[in-house]
Amino acid sequence: MGTSPPIEFWFDLSSPYAYFAALKIKGLAERHGRKVHWRPFLLGVLFRVTGNAPLTGQPLKGDYCRRDWERLARMDGVPFVMRSDFPVATQAPARMILAVERIEGRDLAAWFARSLFEAMFGAGLRIEDAAVAADVGRGIGLDAAMLRKAAEDPELKSALRDQCAEAERRGIFGSPWFIVDGEPFWGADRLPMVERWLTHTTSIGPSTP
Amino acid sequence: MGTSPPIEFWFDLSSPYAYFAALKIKGLAERHGRKVHWRPFLLGVLFRVTGNAPLTGQPLKGDYCRRDWERLARMDGVPFVMRSDFPVATQAPARMILAVERIEGRDLAAWFARSLFEAMFGAGLRIEDAAVAADVGRGIGLDAAMLRKAAEDPELKSALRDQCAEAERRGIFGSPWFIVDGEPFWGADRLPMVERWLTHTTSIGPSTP
Repeated sequence: MGTSPPIEFWFDLSSPYAYFAALKIKGLAERHGRKVHWRPFLLGVLFRVTGNAPLTGQPLKGDYCRRDWERLARMDGVPFVMRSDFPVATQAPARMILAVERIEGRDLAAWFARSLFEAMFGAGLRIEDAAVAADVGRGIGLDAAMLRKAAEDPELKSALRDQCAEAERRGIFGSPWFIVDGEPFWGADRLPMVERWLTHTTSIGPSTP
Repeated sequence: MGTSPPIEFWFDLSSPYAYFAALKIKGLAERHGRKVHWRPFLLGVLFRVTGNAPLTGQPLKGDYCRRDWERLARMDGVPFVMRSDFPVATQAPARMILAVERIEGRDLAAWFARSLFEAMFGAGLRIEDAAVAADVGRGIGLDAAMLRKAAEDPELKSALRDQCAEAERRGIFGSPWFIVDGEPFWGADRLPMVERWLTHTTSIGPSTP
């Protein structure tokens, strides 16, 4: 592995497109000698800035996206369960991911975040419920009591607020969102572009923000 | 060439993402023995249904997209000029494309539409002006007087309204938009998915709408 900075992967745990990206990003990054820094945030906070709304509630777009998610799952050969009670608020599991990162480090936080995505969209579990999310953590060897406590910890609440403020400051308005050496990429369908960027940055040249 | 139905390519001439797709769609289609049916419509009419707004006017998203367009142009090695007076209304050139399709057929209408995109985003011309769009037509051997007349023809106004109504009825809310054997794909970055669909439809299986 080189010493290049990690790829930042910003996501809301309730984002189906982030689920599909979450399954692929580690493999993509490792092919290019990169680590991934998994950064949970809350899309709803950003919607207040952009005036956007959850996909599932939008006329036409909601129907298209439901069809698109099913199709992506078939193409990628991965399970996909779409709950009918969307959108959901993912503060509790997002705080837990931040707690795991602080205590155990980024690798285990990524492992946990991926497990939460799979519980949510592979099995249709209600991971917004702290008890359910803590159970997911227990399944991969984490301390469930620590996780449940993290969901209500004032310091982690504050850390998640900071994370959302950082997202806003850096112009992030969608999930998934990738930042590679300062260059932003929005959307699961931009992973091929991220890969091309990692391979050919010099020939493409960086963007002038 | 096979006898498979053409790929429908729906676009608004003021859509930068449609410009990038317009340059690629013919080559993609021909690799799979398909023709392309170029279908202009007006995104603004659909925005009334979806509540969406032009990308350039949206907080955060506008900045991201401007950067993304420049980047796509560098990656594809194609010219890109972004006018500052966006969005623009493209009724006049859209009606002209419909006129060319009626008189000269789909192939020449596609040729003209591509020329309009290149004039707009390659050279920064004001193709929403009927005289400018007619000049673009003259440049590829079309009758400029016929084109100028088409821009104000009541029957073509009605044909464009019908085209927009069809877009709405079929759930189209973005540009570019592709339909392959009934399957919808939204966005220039979905062209690789369209290509995969054309290659592997049987193994992926069609969507149930």
